[in-house]
Amino acid sequence: MAAISGDALERARRVRLMVFDVDGVMTDGRLWYGPEGETLKQFYSHDGHGLKLLAASGVASAILSGRRSSAVEQRAAELGIAHVLQGIEDKRAAWEALIARLGLPAEATGYAGDDLVDLPVLSRCGFACATREAPRAVRERVHYVCEAPAGSGAVRELCELLLLARGTLDAALARYLA
Amino acid sequence: MAAISGDALERARRVRLMVFDVDGVMTDGRLWYGPEGETLKQFYSHDGHGLKLLAASGVASAILSGRRSSAVEQRAAELGIAHVLQGIEDKRAAWEALIARLGLPAEATGYAGDDLVDLPVLSRCGFACATREAPRAVRERVHYVCEAPAGSGAVRELCELLLLARGTLDAALARYLA
Amino acid sequence: MAAISGDALERARRVRLMVFDVDGVMTDGRLWYGPEGETLKQFYSHDGHGLKLLAASGVASAILSGRRSSAVEQRAAELGIAHVLQGIEDKRAAWEALIARLGLPAEATGYAGDDLVDLPVLSRCGFACATREAPRAVRERVHYVCEAPAGSGAVRELCELLLLARGTLDAALARYLA
Amino acid sequence: MAAISGDALERARRVRLMVFDVDGVMTDGRLWYGPEGETLKQFYSHDGHGLKLLAASGVASAILSGRRSSAVEQRAAELGIAHVLQGIEDKRAAWEALIARLGLPAEATGYAGDDLVDLPVLSRCGFACATREAPRAVRERVHYVCEAPAGSGAVRELCELLLLARGTLDAALARYLA
Repeated sequence: MAAISGDALERARRVRLMVFDVDGVMTDGRLWYGPEGETLKQFYSHDGHGLKLLAASGVASAILSGRRSSAVEQRAAELGIAHVLQGIEDKRAAWEALIARLGLPAEATGYAGDDLVDLPVLSRCGFACATREAPRAVRERVHYVCEAPAGSGAVRELCELLLLARGTLDAALARYLA
Repeated sequence: MAAISGDALERARRVRLMVFDVDGVMTDGRLWYGPEGETLKQFYSHDGHGLKLLAASGVASAILSGRRSSAVEQRAAELGIAHVLQGIEDKRAAWEALIARLGLPAEATGYAGDDLVDLPVLSRCGFACATREAPRAVRERVHYVCEAPAGSGAVRELCELLLLARGTLDAALARYLA
Repeated sequence: MAAISGDALERARRVRLMVFDVDGVMTDGRLWYGPEGETLKQFYSHDGHGLKLLAASGVASAILSGRRSSAVEQRAAELGIAHVLQGIEDKRAAWEALIARLGLPAEATGYAGDDLVDLPVLSRCGFACATREAPRAVRERVHYVCEAPAGSGAVRELCELLLLARGTLDAALARYLA
Repeated sequence: MAAISGDALERARRVRLMVFDVDGVMTDGRLWYGPEGETLKQFYSHDGHGLKLLAASGVASAILSGRRSSAVEQRAAELGIAHVLQGIEDKRAAWEALIARLGLPAEATGYAGDDLVDLPVLSRCGFACATREAPRAVRERVHYVCEAPAGSGAVRELCELLLLARGTLDAALARYLA
């Protein structure tokens, strides 16, 4: 986990819904094309376990992606991610509609993104996170930049950070040490 | 972005058409074979967004590849790349025919390549770029060598460099900060 | 091979059954999804040869995985891995049942894991191993942490370490130098 | 290219047939399994171009693999590799039969391998090469260890080295600078 400021930790503590971009956040940004177009998505086992720990801690997760892939549906279903928004042209509008529907204020939501198209949400949510592979223009405008690579631990790192902020990380670990 | 000389920046500024090799430039050069031959191509999400920014800035893109794959057709269609030349044995001849058809002088075109077969075009176009993975014989003969890896940011880097040279990079960013 | 303590070497020497997690140990933890869910697993050729050397040395291998994939069945069959337990929710219960069935005491078994769910077995087996990519909470609680990456040599490293502990590594090598 | 001794260069100069292992040499050793077993092989574009340069220089290539995959047939056909031996249990016997059939003495053949099973051929051929990822027991017993990674340049490096030893590397390059 990268060093985290007190402000970022306080922001993370308020998060009730964590929203993740897919390509370049849950994946490493590589897109696998076959003869019919995109055909594979690569996720990461530690990230999936982090999302399960996060749910068990009472924080909901959502996916907000500009692309559309049934692989994402499959992965989200396995992990119990309730809100899966794909093929979204206007991320800000979709995010505002989602949090309005859930009755959440912006400061109760976090967002993890990796590119310029994520800036309109990153600049409005309570806890803005970027991957270390994001362009500098993005990394300079968030509260937290991941240390672990996208698609290989960045999501897990964010999940553990949220648990740490909520004071539930040790309890999550203790369940496996019984 | 790697350090760029004033000469290279001036050359980049004149580019109206940027031509990309596929394998080893838009991909990392890995070739995925199944029982029937090549079956997958791996592209990169940040690169795709860079190509969209480039088009929005008024620079056209083209693909010029020695191999042939329908995955490339799919990706090019998604990104709105107008000129897709695949299965090209003689890259120089194909490039000369393309720029003649478009009525462009050589100095208004850039080319990004990664191997010896790209040298005949690299030595003639206005703005010659190589990946950092290209053999030294290629890297020594271009105006710019990418810092980001092929298939994971090299194309994005070139797109941003072209925008920077044209003075449109800040405007492109500003659209996401509104 | 990482530095290994005398205690760990002594523990390794007693192992008659080495149990491996799959994702993040035999693979690098990346999960490849297609439209119907997980579709590919990536193994490593050196790891496979290590498992064959281990079997030839008289140590049996087992697979204990929380997920389920026919790719794992295929790989295990090729390598002659006798015990393949997949889709296991409770790894401790499955491990206890396996060693009871084989009549082995806990100290005659090793386990290689990479995440919190592996802790209940890691804390009970004779020789507990973690990948270098495992969370610190796991790495701090094992007898040995692999130096080679998961999915690219970690399993081979463990196999060679077990041969070294048994004093049969040189003999295994000698067969190829005849 | 790694530093090469005068002895190794002299050995390389005599090579008329270069034999390559597949997994861990032409690939990075990763094995991709689907529900029916191994399903993909990952090759490298620069390596392929190197094999073409080698053929143009008058050195034949062969493939000698313990595994069997139609992906290898496809790749070998594309590159014009004349001798493709797959599913070989006893590499030494297959290699001895091949060079006898071609009427070549051992010193006119090179071999590139990555694991213990390659030692019986490596210890007999004229120019023995190992990948940098090979176990130390292999790397210590060859004339040359590749600097570039297996599956991403190791084969290209060996091809260029053979051209250099034959004094034809500059001529190969000159064809692209005309």
